[in-house]
Amino acid sequence: MDIKKQLQRYFGRYVHFTEDEFECIFEKLQVKTFAKKEFLLEKGQICRYKYFISKGLIRSFYIDEKGTEKITQFAIDNWWLTNMESFVREQPSTVYLQALEESIVYYIQKSELEYLYSKIPKLERLFRIITENMLIAQQRKSDIYLQMKSKDRYEDMVKHLPDFVQRIPQYMLASYLEITPEYLSELRKNRT
Amino acid sequence: MDIKKQLQRYFGRYVHFTEDEFECIFEKLQVKTFAKKEFLLEKGQICRYKYFISKGLIRSFYIDEKGTEKITQFAIDNWWLTNMESFVREQPSTVYLQALEESIVYYIQKSELEYLYSKIPKLERLFRIITENMLIAQQRKSDIYLQMKSKDRYEDMVKHLPDFVQRIPQYMLASYLEITPEYLSELRKNRT
Repeated sequence: MDIKKQLQRYFGRYVHFTEDEFECIFEKLQVKTFAKKEFLLEKGQICRYKYFISKGLIRSFYIDEKGTEKITQFAIDNWWLTNMESFVREQPSTVYLQALEESIVYYIQKSELEYLYSKIPKLERLFRIITENMLIAQQRKSDIYLQMKSKDRYEDMVKHLPDFVQRIPQYMLASYLEITPEYLSELRKNRT
Repeated sequence: MDIKKQLQRYFGRYVHFTEDEFECIFEKLQVKTFAKKEFLLEKGQICRYKYFISKGLIRSFYIDEKGTEKITQFAIDNWWLTNMESFVREQPSTVYLQALEESIVYYIQKSELEYLYSKIPKLERLFRIITENMLIAQQRKSDIYLQMKSKDRYEDMVKHLPDFVQRIPQYMLASYLEITPEYLSELRKNRT
């Protein structure tokens, strides 16, 4: 599918934009293909964009005191990603955003987005809903998974985010779920 | 200050509403005084409201496998709180919301809010911004604090949320920061 059409269809799930409105939004988006392992954002940089993953797989992570990578979020096709505090308050980012596959990513600058909000107020609705969904993903990771046994975290992910489970490398999925790769491999075997 | 005026001033920080628009929003809000220790929401219930704390202190928490209370968020005067996944998807809540002081709380039902969004589109902007701030608070708790040494977590809280540090009982603040109450007490002593 044409990536422009994909974006239009995605927006249409939440808000109906006229052709003119959509064109006006589309004009302000930039697009770039990130190579596997390329960074969208590094720790210490100010996050200038909200990113929309048209196709690919991106992770958000930081490195803890012991040098271990801690994954905080994943995003695949049709997901938005940003470091919200860095973006809103223009502070250095505390996380890295990195492509795990070759990824086609649309992104929009804050000033352009503010301009669009004032020109097309319906866009506020789209981003109100998107931000609610980002908050839900974040709460699921931090509040819900920590309450669950390791086994149940994996089951929950299979149930709620099956596309993610298919695409994310196993050792990274294990890191995200805070279980060992060996145990994850066992859980996968037991399901089949 | 009159609590209606307080709310109007709070809204005015983000969006200018006319007197008529504000009245229309205000009419849809319910208000209740919660006693100390009273629950706004219990685990397993569906969260039907977005809550605005006019005056008071509320915490969001769950109980882990070992029976330990884990605090995920606090909210004081002029903060919003909800369990977003439960509210949006109408699923049972995974957390409790509980008043830690006698608290005056405004709250609004989902259907009323949807009605207001369609009638006063500027309200989308207000809640887009509020949700971004909720996401920032959540990311600060789960991504940023976990990267910091215990000492720095406390310093960060003093810097970013001094009102919270003043009002939250010490042992609960320690729980939130995932440090021992003894260590917190030492950190406080060293600052004075």
